[in-house]
Amino acid sequence: MRYQLYYWPGIQGRGEFIRLAFEYAGVRYEDVARKQGDEVIQQILERPGAPFACPVLKAGKLLIGQTPNILHYLGPRLGLAPKDEPRRLWLHQVQLTIADWLTEIHDTHHPIGSGLYYEDQKKEAKRRAKDFLANRLPKYVSYFEDNLSGKFSYINLSLFQMVEGLEYAFPRAMKGIRAPRLRRNRDEVRKALAAYLGSERRIAFNQQGIFRHYAELDA
Amino acid sequence: MRYQLYYWPGIQGRGEFIRLAFEYAGVRYEDVARKQGDEVIQQILERPGAPFACPVLKAGKLLIGQTPNILHYLGPRLGLAPKDEPRRLWLHQVQLTIADWLTEIHDTHHPIGSGLYYEDQKKEAKRRAKDFLANRLPKYVSYFEDNLSGKFSYINLSLFQMVEGLEYAFPRAMKGIRAPRLRRNRDEVRKALAAYLGSERRIAFNQQGIFRHYAELDA
Repeated sequence: MRYQLYYWPGIQGRGEFIRLAFEYAGVRYEDVARKQGDEVIQQILERPGAPFACPVLKAGKLLIGQTPNILHYLGPRLGLAPKDEPRRLWLHQVQLTIADWLTEIHDTHHPIGSGLYYEDQKKEAKRRAKDFLANRLPKYVSYFEDNLSGKFSYINLSLFQMVEGLEYAFPRAMKGIRAPRLRRNRDEVRKALAAYLGSERRIAFNQQGIFRHYAELDA
Repeated sequence: MRYQLYYWPGIQGRGEFIRLAFEYAGVRYEDVARKQGDEVIQQILERPGAPFACPVLKAGKLLIGQTPNILHYLGPRLGLAPKDEPRRLWLHQVQLTIADWLTEIHDTHHPIGSGLYYEDQKKEAKRRAKDFLANRLPKYVSYFEDNLSGKFSYINLSLFQMVEGLEYAFPRAMKGIRAPRLRRNRDEVRKALAAYLGSERRIAFNQQGIFRHYAELDA
């Protein structure tokens, strides 16, 4: 199967969750826009029946949209999820909860509009980030601490990415967060993915991505 | 199969997308918290391995979380989705896009924190609603106008609910939105579901739900 990922070439963003799955599995994929530029994304989204937004995975003739849906599809094919339906549904609802968490993280710096600059919603961002760090972050962390068990799956990779991102964006707030299982998982995945993380294929966290570090938003 | 839905008994909310599927299919389900009260929700969420939040569907011994995941599971079982994987994946990514849209609608009245009162984030809500109505609403409507075709599925039911909700929440803004396919679909589903919609099982839209009407947020 020929796998082609369409995602913004300058950020980790949602596409990174897909990249991590391929990299961990050691399965070849093309990161199309990184080779050919942004324009290919607009082209693929304009096809009839295309998804609403990227990431889009082209798997043979199939176009698949929405990060958790792509991982749901890839999971058993990359050895990162079992094949039985009950367990796949369970992993998928965990991934969908990670997606909700990620959206809330994005909205700490963009609470008013994703098309506006951070600078134009900074005041609102401070309020939203404060509420997120006080109420939502501990709730999510506690849920995933309790549910990070069972056989290694794409969930472990996604939770690695969440911890890395949160520590980049909110280093001070994360110091106050007890998450021994999530951090052990992060350390293990970091080791397993050392070659990828040290390569130029891994885009660094930056201020255009979902995880952004603004000192004024950190606790 | 014994189906039990766990969702807040006082609002349509995310649970309504599941109720619509059962009602349209004419398949029996128990709306557990409406019979037994809110407490059952907390009880089910405290079980080990339970989802993060409701709605939760108990299907026999299986606990399934996340609305789009529940519909993905139920679709072929209720005759509301085909059984082949490519088509199921496509429907699922459409439903996930509807879920994103729904979260953006929720955030028009709660841009700062879901645990705070509307009155405490009214100023920010005005800005967010303005951006949503100007930029996001037309983008989503145009996508679904282009992608509402093919065999009847749970997507048709979900898009019925979106149009009903948007016209309740933003009657003025929706007057300016051209959406002939979405409105025709709404009318057809309304007719097919007349018995349910006229029954006491259908909770009315209200100011505790996701779709809320605040005149000051409408265009």
